[in-house]
Amino acid sequence: MSKRVAVLTSGGDAPGMNACIRAIVIACERHGFTLFGYQHGYNGLLEQEYEILALQATHNLIQQGGTVLHSARCEPFKTDEGAKTAATNLTELEIDTLIVIGGDGSFRGADHLADFWHGQIIGIPGTIDNDVAGTDATIGYYTAIDTVVSSIDKVRDTADAFERIFIVEVMGRHAGFLALNSALASAADYVILPETFQHCDAELDKITEQIEKRRQLKGAISFIIVVAENVWPGGLNDLADKLVSKTQSEVRPVTLGHVQRGGSPVSQDRLLATKLGTYAVSLVGSDTNGIMVGELNGTPSEIALTETWEKDKPLNPSSMETMLTIMNERY
Amino acid sequence: MSKRVAVLTSGGDAPGMNACIRAIVIACERHGFTLFGYQHGYNGLLEQEYEILALQATHNLIQQGGTVLHSARCEPFKTDEGAKTAATNLTELEIDTLIVIGGDGSFRGADHLADFWHGQIIGIPGTIDNDVAGTDATIGYYTAIDTVVSSIDKVRDTADAFERIFIVEVMGRHAGFLALNSALASAADYVILPETFQHCDAELDKITEQIEKRRQLKGAISFIIVVAENVWPGGLNDLADKLVSKTQSEVRPVTLGHVQRGGSPVSQDRLLATKLGTYAVSLVGSDTNGIMVGELNGTPSEIALTETWEKDKPLNPSSMETMLTIMNERY
Amino acid sequence: MSKRVAVLTSGGDAPGMNACIRAIVIACERHGFTLFGYQHGYNGLLEQEYEILALQATHNLIQQGGTVLHSARCEPFKTDEGAKTAATNLTELEIDTLIVIGGDGSFRGADHLADFWHGQIIGIPGTIDNDVAGTDATIGYYTAIDTVVSSIDKVRDTADAFERIFIVEVMGRHAGFLALNSALASAADYVILPETFQHCDAELDKITEQIEKRRQLKGAISFIIVVAENVWPGGLNDLADKLVSKTQSEVRPVTLGHVQRGGSPVSQDRLLATKLGTYAVSLVGSDTNGIMVGELNGTPSEIALTETWEKDKPLNPSSMETMLTIMNERY
Amino acid sequence: MSKRVAVLTSGGDAPGMNACIRAIVIACERHGFTLFGYQHGYNGLLEQEYEILALQATHNLIQQGGTVLHSARCEPFKTDEGAKTAATNLTELEIDTLIVIGGDGSFRGADHLADFWHGQIIGIPGTIDNDVAGTDATIGYYTAIDTVVSSIDKVRDTADAFERIFIVEVMGRHAGFLALNSALASAADYVILPETFQHCDAELDKITEQIEKRRQLKGAISFIIVVAENVWPGGLNDLADKLVSKTQSEVRPVTLGHVQRGGSPVSQDRLLATKLGTYAVSLVGSDTNGIMVGELNGTPSEIALTETWEKDKPLNPSSMETMLTIMNERY
Repeated sequence: MSKRVAVLTSGGDAPGMNACIRAIVIACERHGFTLFGYQHGYNGLLEQEYEILALQATHNLIQQGGTVLHSARCEPFKTDEGAKTAATNLTELEIDTLIVIGGDGSFRGADHLADFWHGQIIGIPGTIDNDVAGTDATIGYYTAIDTVVSSIDKVRDTADAFERIFIVEVMGRHAGFLALNSALASAADYVILPETFQHCDAELDKITEQIEKRRQLKGAISFIIVVAENVWPGGLNDLADKLVSKTQSEVRPVTLGHVQRGGSPVSQDRLLATKLGTYAVSLVGSDTNGIMVGELNGTPSEIALTETWEKDKPLNPSSMETMLTIMNERY
Repeated sequence: MSKRVAVLTSGGDAPGMNACIRAIVIACERHGFTLFGYQHGYNGLLEQEYEILALQATHNLIQQGGTVLHSARCEPFKTDEGAKTAATNLTELEIDTLIVIGGDGSFRGADHLADFWHGQIIGIPGTIDNDVAGTDATIGYYTAIDTVVSSIDKVRDTADAFERIFIVEVMGRHAGFLALNSALASAADYVILPETFQHCDAELDKITEQIEKRRQLKGAISFIIVVAENVWPGGLNDLADKLVSKTQSEVRPVTLGHVQRGGSPVSQDRLLATKLGTYAVSLVGSDTNGIMVGELNGTPSEIALTETWEKDKPLNPSSMETMLTIMNERY
Repeated sequence: MSKRVAVLTSGGDAPGMNACIRAIVIACERHGFTLFGYQHGYNGLLEQEYEILALQATHNLIQQGGTVLHSARCEPFKTDEGAKTAATNLTELEIDTLIVIGGDGSFRGADHLADFWHGQIIGIPGTIDNDVAGTDATIGYYTAIDTVVSSIDKVRDTADAFERIFIVEVMGRHAGFLALNSALASAADYVILPETFQHCDAELDKITEQIEKRRQLKGAISFIIVVAENVWPGGLNDLADKLVSKTQSEVRPVTLGHVQRGGSPVSQDRLLATKLGTYAVSLVGSDTNGIMVGELNGTPSEIALTETWEKDKPLNPSSMETMLTIMNERY
Repeated sequence: MSKRVAVLTSGGDAPGMNACIRAIVIACERHGFTLFGYQHGYNGLLEQEYEILALQATHNLIQQGGTVLHSARCEPFKTDEGAKTAATNLTELEIDTLIVIGGDGSFRGADHLADFWHGQIIGIPGTIDNDVAGTDATIGYYTAIDTVVSSIDKVRDTADAFERIFIVEVMGRHAGFLALNSALASAADYVILPETFQHCDAELDKITEQIEKRRQLKGAISFIIVVAENVWPGGLNDLADKLVSKTQSEVRPVTLGHVQRGGSPVSQDRLLATKLGTYAVSLVGSDTNGIMVGELNGTPSEIALTETWEKDKPLNPSSMETMLTIMNERY
């Protein structure tokens, strides 16, 4: 009955990955399982680079950003040869269950590994982008929203002082969760999302119209536009230039960048990470295989790894509705 | 079609009440409604103390704790006479819809008012305790968890430095949501909840046993116990005294107190408040009456005011399950 | 004896400007002075745009970033004609004392005004750059350091997770105070300062050498370089490219940008702002004129406005010494 | 030339102690010294409980509260016998220099040890109370102020919402630094300090008078009183009761307690700790002995250990002056 479990973190790091590792360590200890931590994502699997994770390793781990197991890209793992090596190494170590904490790219890797290794594979969603189907939120998403919101709170101080237009670029290149919800929570004035973007002129017209309306109502104003990265064809500076010429105003671009990935996880990420890590360990040794655990409607859930990237994950309808009512105005 | 809407905040203040007021102001403006803000909770209704809330009032309101409408207890309102006066005042001001932001006590008041005033009444849940049925979370709850968690993070520094036992008392006298989830998110070692507390000796035995096990495993340790206020019969100091004699260790009690009610709301409270305020205004003029709006499974919901206190609201099962697996050990 | 005092904020906004305004309002009220707040920096002087600031205006002002008096550039004020208009307006309003909160550019403006207006002028240093002689710190500097340090704390999470090199660009184009002290406080690995920069190759050699030494000692490492804006000739991307080719490593640039100017002021900025505002008002009506108030060695001080930009302000010697011992290694 | 250095932390923990240990480790490594870390304060000296501190131990140490060397009270060390044992152990380990990070109680211990051990002893001031002469600030003091101020910011939200009186008790039983400066920085309305307290009736009269004045000016108000612990004869509840009967208002007491000792150190504490640790190591092997290093006017300084508790350390005159002008009114 005593299982051998392995865990690794893969893809972009996200706050709460360590909290999840901590929960897995404690849960394994209470179930009497042995836990191996692979280092540097899938590279650790290829190099058989691991250590046994014991309770001592969890001290004050819950509040640390990043991942103590490290992460890294791993091109060789994507080949059949790489996956075979990984399978051999897992077999050699007699691993029963491999837990992968990461995003959809990491789950594609795990799915590919399953062609060559027949142990149990469980994914846990860890990415600030929240672009993984089968779970309401991903580990790291809540902290990233708070980081963006507190940055915009700061930017607004200057925007107000100078009555200027600011454009703030946030992460999430394929999914607007972070942009939409941080814009709502920071009382931004406009948001440009990958899901709703049509073409530049339409957005520019809407923005300009709202700025004009606001000015007629209140005189000089500040105006903050949140834009998801990679949505605007010419990039942030192109958007800024176009706004300058359309509004005859000073416009300042701000790229939040890598600070969005780090930081001590906020409570909601610590909770989600702790629940998902514990739940994943509860499935060790069961028939369930090739799935990602998540939380839907506050309840633990499972979804096939392949569905995590194949299934559509639409933006929260109530956030969209709220946004259209009080931020970007409907036309 | 142009409605006259009134809003008030009642009961203990909670972070995000102002974010909710802001959303109501903007949504009313976009719907073309006139919005009156009553001051000092139900006292404002009795004294006809109000002001018209316009867009200007919302500037930088989203990030402020407390409530710009103020709150206060109001004993006279609980009498029939008081409720009649309030009804007369609402009629005089030709109010179509009254929005009450508060907890279950505030909703009882609103329900009583409905005996004498036949306009539309909509409740919005605002309390750090999360003890209101019909919504997954209440406005203020997320911020309070973060405040507690960051306080326990600080206490742990000293607990670790001195390898001492600390007891931290958190708010939530009838409901353990705040205690349970802040304990999980702060990696506390034990939690005492109103929902599961049986008697002192049983809890003391479990705590002592876990401390002993931990010491055998790791030597000197720190140990943090979270306790919901009013659960332990003799209060925090009695619990501390009993632990001193049972464990022969130094024990330090910490009462977090009123800091838990304040602070700039975290993103999740700003989002919830903004959604619920917007949704409440979307119901103005509809047939829906005597209800509280909430969010269940990420979707706007409605529940009869009476059910908000009559229906049972159990602690999150997945938090309980996680807690029993990795914190308070099962026996 | 009852004086008429005016205050304005000018130049880049800095956290604590509002705390300073609050202190001036209260101190004026206690001295029985009337206080006028000019809007939009020197533009308010030209347009005679002002309001009387009373105690009510100070509520919860101490914790707000930005400036409620707004700021703006004002080219016309730099001309003799502009300064004459301002002088006329001040005379018309019978102002005895003008208090200017800003940086050295603002003080040049004030000095120019003194050619045309013979009332009392008092400067208060408010800028995150700390590049003003005559005071140990400027209002906003402490908060900016904390903002930078907490951003670097976040960046380090990812740097550690991926064992990567990050370059973080911080504000302070002519003075390295912010870069030096935030680098020390964030445990950065290297700092490039305007005061010590010589040429690109020398810096690149030193950085590369330290990275190599560290790798030999510890294997894969993270490495964080702080660089003051505008120091590196080709900009941040040029530095990143050169480091990639020299170290054969992945390098990620991060520009912190405008978030550094905003935010609720930390305690030390609130204290400094409160002291300097109070002290400035204590000088109203004295013979002291054309000076900036500051704090040197914990004691209120005065310096001629002209000296604030003419006098050299060297980087803190003890910070430099510490930096050379434990960060950038000596050779 | 290669010295053997030992370091320990003693007394109440303070944020920044770890940052100081980190600086000492790095500085010793660069000087080629061997560094021993004694555990549990002076207990480690008695039990010869230590480990060699190497560079690896410093990773991400700068931002951690508490002390990785642990701290503890140690009654036996106060006896001659205890001090002799410690001296023997230091001699056995061939320690050249002992660095003690702590408050005046810890320095008394170090001074007593010097009767029996003739190696070099250097103290570094680490305590949130700032009650050590010979340094402008002690390590931990800046973080504690920020913790208190952000707590009072939160309390004010509720105080404003309910227009209530709150009393906030802060640490610092013999010295009012923390109370005075946190009260100023949080815009508290009144502060009770050990240095200026005379008798209860006089303070109550002043408080009541100010509350009355404020109410006449503004109507209902909030009012926050900061009180240093152990100053008010009957304790916090007695002060609350007396205020209730004098003002006929609701009064709420808040004890901040142990959260004031913990937390990630703010930048100013990290800087101070890093500078003092580096400076202390620079003195290793010099003739200087029996001293504490500090920072006076931004410059490294030294003071005899005995003077750290014998010399008077008055409250910052400019803070006192500011307080009397804008907070507690003069009479």
